[in-house]
Amino acid sequence: MASVDVPVALLGYGTVGSAVSRLLVESADDIERATGHRLRVVRALVRDPEKERAFPADPGVLTTDIADIRDDPSIAVVAEVMGGIEPTGDYVLALLAAGKPVVSANKQLIARRGAELFGAASAAGVQLRFEASVCAAIPVIKVLREALVVTTVHRILGIVNGTTNFILTEMEKGSGYDEALAEAQRQGFAEADPTEDVSGADAAAKMAILATVAFGSRVTLDDVEYEGIESITPLHVAAAREMGMAVRLVGAASLVGGKLDVRVHPALVDRRHPLAAVEGAFNAVMLQGDAIREITLEGPGAGGIETASAVVADMVSVIGTTGTGFLQNDACWRELEPLEPGRLRSPFYVRLDVEDRAGVLAHVALRLATHGVSIGRLVQHQDNGSATLHIVTHEAPAGDVDAALEEIGGLEESRSAPSALPVISDRGVPGLGWA
Amino acid sequence: MASVDVPVALLGYGTVGSAVSRLLVESADDIERATGHRLRVVRALVRDPEKERAFPADPGVLTTDIADIRDDPSIAVVAEVMGGIEPTGDYVLALLAAGKPVVSANKQLIARRGAELFGAASAAGVQLRFEASVCAAIPVIKVLREALVVTTVHRILGIVNGTTNFILTEMEKGSGYDEALAEAQRQGFAEADPTEDVSGADAAAKMAILATVAFGSRVTLDDVEYEGIESITPLHVAAAREMGMAVRLVGAASLVGGKLDVRVHPALVDRRHPLAAVEGAFNAVMLQGDAIREITLEGPGAGGIETASAVVADMVSVIGTTGTGFLQNDACWRELEPLEPGRLRSPFYVRLDVEDRAGVLAHVALRLATHGVSIGRLVQHQDNGSATLHIVTHEAPAGDVDAALEEIGGLEESRSAPSALPVISDRGVPGLGWA
Repeated sequence: MASVDVPVALLGYGTVGSAVSRLLVESADDIERATGHRLRVVRALVRDPEKERAFPADPGVLTTDIADIRDDPSIAVVAEVMGGIEPTGDYVLALLAAGKPVVSANKQLIARRGAELFGAASAAGVQLRFEASVCAAIPVIKVLREALVVTTVHRILGIVNGTTNFILTEMEKGSGYDEALAEAQRQGFAEADPTEDVSGADAAAKMAILATVAFGSRVTLDDVEYEGIESITPLHVAAAREMGMAVRLVGAASLVGGKLDVRVHPALVDRRHPLAAVEGAFNAVMLQGDAIREITLEGPGAGGIETASAVVADMVSVIGTTGTGFLQNDACWRELEPLEPGRLRSPFYVRLDVEDRAGVLAHVALRLATHGVSIGRLVQHQDNGSATLHIVTHEAPAGDVDAALEEIGGLEESRSAPSALPVISDRGVPGLGWA
Repeated sequence: MASVDVPVALLGYGTVGSAVSRLLVESADDIERATGHRLRVVRALVRDPEKERAFPADPGVLTTDIADIRDDPSIAVVAEVMGGIEPTGDYVLALLAAGKPVVSANKQLIARRGAELFGAASAAGVQLRFEASVCAAIPVIKVLREALVVTTVHRILGIVNGTTNFILTEMEKGSGYDEALAEAQRQGFAEADPTEDVSGADAAAKMAILATVAFGSRVTLDDVEYEGIESITPLHVAAAREMGMAVRLVGAASLVGGKLDVRVHPALVDRRHPLAAVEGAFNAVMLQGDAIREITLEGPGAGGIETASAVVADMVSVIGTTGTGFLQNDACWRELEPLEPGRLRSPFYVRLDVEDRAGVLAHVALRLATHGVSIGRLVQHQDNGSATLHIVTHEAPAGDVDAALEEIGGLEESRSAPSALPVISDRGVPGLGWA
């Protein structure tokens, strides 16, 4: 292949933008060797051209006017690395409408305005790629779309937020939640305001994107039920350890009888399950499907250089193909109904604080049995007139478990309002629920 | 995209060929939706057209004459799923020379005749893809080549043989080697003649291909030093468990100071390391590099339908791109020297059977120290006048450890010839050796 000079542009020139710029310079020989192209940043949209940057742009590259990028016919692809929803979304729409392929690292934008953006890209016949929007350098979008093109994926399980996974693995070492969060902030794994991460919202956006790609039906952030880790205590962590499990914030996207369920929740994961082995700020995504049984990808799910690596790989893929590439731009081709609330099946872990008196276990077991929930494992601890029951149920619909727990919470022996955490223990079984 | 009917052909129509044929029929809608193309098997080369097949071909498809495929201008891509070196290699060369893109699932062919095959593909300006040749449905070639285009990968660690991993995890449950092998044969995870797998030769061919792609320098089977699991006993497995580790057959490809080292050996893997979590016939490949730190892919590394899934994904990729695709055909662009024997650094596990008398530990420690090998952990067991020492060294060159062990084996207190197994315990550290 003859070497071709390819002008490219960036929206944003912060941490990720600087890293993209640096990679394109430092890996220019690698890219040319692999593809025959040399990518050169000729424009970058910024708010303040005077600000100091980690990897300074060449003179004349920085601009504050999107028109300098949109209207430059030489620019072959634009990487959106500025983040935010507005004005970012309108910039991206304008670029696509002007026939510019775009690569985006922005999960909130893709998860919220995906339909509109992919529509604009298809209308203009250009690519919109978004590998870096989910789990940074872990190439889960490429694998789902290109490598698994003939595999019907029916479930995705993921640890897709590094901040919460760091906090949970710190708690396994003995820290309380607040202490673990402070350590995450100190090491740069959590923001000063950690809400987006610890609430599960960040993971929810990523699961919406993964579910959309895997199932071919649009899933937006509003379609994802999520719960964070703020209520996880050392008691949960200790109970998990006692049962050979670990607490993890798990995203689960399931296709059940032609209906969709996408959620993010704390769960108890069996120690021998690959997701339990994911430690610190790492991410992992497990794809379960017909032809492949189960493929798991693990790696760093965040970081400037990791994200930039995925952005550049997408830029290279855009330039190496023509039009919309060899795949349709938008993975969506159908509209699936959501699974009815409470219908998703899973084994559950339940912790009950009760008075230690005769008959209490019979009462609890009866309430569970009434709702068709059977007990798989039970561990009981006594302490000074009170007892703690750790129960792992067999697989049951979440709604039935919740209904039983509401009744159990109303028993006069009950000392707290019990709640259930899903349990993940199987490997590669095309199950119907979380398990 | 308009739908385009695309005639394709197969070399071989056995287990994998039947599965490819079935996938192309059953997933025709999926493929058309994703790519705009409908792939249709119009020819398949077989030795015996009368043989019964798992998924019978359409009438007139089977042929015994390679010319029917080579000279049919309508055939857009050929999948080589017949295996073997000859006549397969010559068929593939003839097809490439005739301008037909080829997808191969044949690790021995790619590992032995890669230079010649890629040369022919480049000369003809057509693609030769080989995802299915390494770890079936785990898309490690696509990830290495396309997703990690700007990452310098400096080490690959892999469990790339399912048979041996199945045997080793059976041994963890208490079986002896022979019993575990018999169970693997009973469950279809091992051949009647298991030599290729248990000797490490199969893993060596896969590591040769992975190292070639990752480092850009040709590595053939002859360049890979390998050792199988035939000498692993329950004693190794028990010692590993005692130290919180597991025995695994690990392939390691390392770039050390600009030199190459590719090997397959039994190793002790820390229980918290992702490779220790790989159980049964599953495979995993860990890629360590600059921008990505560490990405691990895990999944089923064998199986007809899994292999077929990777073959079809490659066929789709070929058809969706033009000429040699957006990457150079051959990943090789330089010639790296092999690392000198014994220079690769690692911590090692050493088991010593010695007489239980005063001074023996001092003798052992002195011999290690003389060769610059320091002891990280030591566990001693006494039993009736003899003692077993379990030693984990700090990182040291393999040659120095071997030299020390030769002297130790010559001590009069020694009761056996000691040998060393590498230990793998770190995560994501750009180390220089196995560790």
